[in-house]
Amino acid sequence: MIVIPLERADAVWEAIRSLRVRGAPAIGVCAAYGVVVGTRERKPDSAKAAVHAARDTADYLATSRPTAVNLFWALDRMRAAAKAAPTDRGAPGVLAHLEKTAAAIHEEDRRLCRAIGRAGAALIPENGGVLTHCNAGGLATADYGTALAVMFRAHEEGRVFRVFADETRPLLQGARLTTWELREHDIPVTLICDSMAAQVMKEGKIDVVIVGADRIAANGDTANKIGTYGVALLAAAHKIPFYVAAPTSTIDLNAADGSAIPIEQRSAEEITNGFGAATAPPGIDVYNPAFDVTPASFITGIVTESGIVRPPFEDRLREMVLAAEQGRLVAAGSS
Amino acid sequence: MIVIPLERADAVWEAIRSLRVRGAPAIGVCAAYGVVVGTRERKPDSAKAAVHAARDTADYLATSRPTAVNLFWALDRMRAAAKAAPTDRGAPGVLAHLEKTAAAIHEEDRRLCRAIGRAGAALIPENGGVLTHCNAGGLATADYGTALAVMFRAHEEGRVFRVFADETRPLLQGARLTTWELREHDIPVTLICDSMAAQVMKEGKIDVVIVGADRIAANGDTANKIGTYGVALLAAAHKIPFYVAAPTSTIDLNAADGSAIPIEQRSAEEITNGFGAATAPPGIDVYNPAFDVTPASFITGIVTESGIVRPPFEDRLREMVLAAEQGRLVAAGSS
Repeated sequence: MIVIPLERADAVWEAIRSLRVRGAPAIGVCAAYGVVVGTRERKPDSAKAAVHAARDTADYLATSRPTAVNLFWALDRMRAAAKAAPTDRGAPGVLAHLEKTAAAIHEEDRRLCRAIGRAGAALIPENGGVLTHCNAGGLATADYGTALAVMFRAHEEGRVFRVFADETRPLLQGARLTTWELREHDIPVTLICDSMAAQVMKEGKIDVVIVGADRIAANGDTANKIGTYGVALLAAAHKIPFYVAAPTSTIDLNAADGSAIPIEQRSAEEITNGFGAATAPPGIDVYNPAFDVTPASFITGIVTESGIVRPPFEDRLREMVLAAEQGRLVAAGSS
Repeated sequence: MIVIPLERADAVWEAIRSLRVRGAPAIGVCAAYGVVVGTRERKPDSAKAAVHAARDTADYLATSRPTAVNLFWALDRMRAAAKAAPTDRGAPGVLAHLEKTAAAIHEEDRRLCRAIGRAGAALIPENGGVLTHCNAGGLATADYGTALAVMFRAHEEGRVFRVFADETRPLLQGARLTTWELREHDIPVTLICDSMAAQVMKEGKIDVVIVGADRIAANGDTANKIGTYGVALLAAAHKIPFYVAAPTSTIDLNAADGSAIPIEQRSAEEITNGFGAATAPPGIDVYNPAFDVTPASFITGIVTESGIVRPPFEDRLREMVLAAEQGRLVAAGSS
């Protein structure tokens, strides 16, 4: 793991934009600290100036990624913290309140990851095979991961199983990160190319697919790393259960369904020059969507910190989000 | 295109083995010339010695790739040519007959490619989108390709369409070769990662999938580059027709169905060190099947030099192979 010190708001913006910070929960935690950093950077000379600087920084950081709902969620909490901050101690008082809120988001992320792991661990059968796509592990969260948290927990419970990790082109998060994290936890892992998932399923090697999520619409449609939708279709074709593991903060009730989630397009060079060498003729036309949306109908269940939600998703997801928000309001009020 | 001079049988063996010569028809043509080269290399001093050397070389070249039916087919023809060669002119007479047979296989490949193109061109609609996987173009045949021949012909007929080329991990034949060949023919082409095929289909960009084949079983089950099976499942999920384009020599009546086709496993380094840089932690476990088998039930039609075969495949494929063999026997008899 590489620790990137980020001491300016534009460095935070760039780190989120360029995917150096990645994974929905990690982006939220990073953006929350980014508001603190950005506010401090402006050297506000009054409580009012500090609140203004915090809001400005939040607006700025919100432009870094269009699909990352945890980003918006964390920034909204930081805006609310700025608004609720005590003004009687000037700028330092506001800054202290912002920092406390960012630390609380960080700590919540830790607890959520562990809870997701506990909720989903039983999905992995003894001597089973798990397929995952991209990386939703400790490198994508502040602690323990979402999809990988389920595997870590099953392993801690003594279950023996093997994970097949899609390499996840173009940025190879599966090859570079997921294999590394699983091996660090002594979980048997086999790397495959994305194009091999169907064959591995056909050979009976996979009992369950578990992936993370970038954003989940109110009806359960799930945006995640490009290729996830294809994996879900392949799982359905082989009658393999397909689970999404994500904190409730990833659920966006403002997006009625997947069509409300914009698909970010990324640069051609990620595909044609991703390894330090050209892998395609120069100037060739490239299509590079960063995410896709898996329709809820292909999702067996969504593993959250509050348990597993199964279809029909709509009402349960809404209840869960409202309960989580209520819980956070209570926690925020008591802090 | 790189022309690799192969003047020794072991160089031919290595070129086929290492996929430097690739694509079912190209392998057949290459192996046929390989028998000539290998026979000459032994400097046989009699017709009998030449026939013996030809058979030995054919047996040796047959060990280079386990799934390439065109390889076995071409080698069988060369064995038959050795047996039928005139013995009254010593070794030179046998060699001349072998060379003539290899040249005939080469010329047949040219004609077959053009005929496949004509048979399939109408499958591509005006302003349509075509998805292809791997490379089944002129670089994979002695001339014009199989899957790409269909596109080249449709383009020659004045049709306007766009091809989406899967990059085809691990060896990136789609990124490196298919994009290049299509652009050389002025056909609009967009490169995508394998993991993006499902999304491109979902967006309505694809009207037809056309791929090549390494080997087709008697029932229509088709072995082709790893990832083809997944693409077929994704096409079925989006109700997009899925066609295989291949000469009848690719049909192996001795394989009743796909279960009779062995899946070659290749080295981990193709996946973990394919770009001159390590893309996974050292020593990680890798699964790297070179091919997969698409069940006939997911294939809309097989485009051959004799026309398009549609399900049920079994009887039509058998008739077609027997007719083609009959044609070749007649051609061989008249030569």
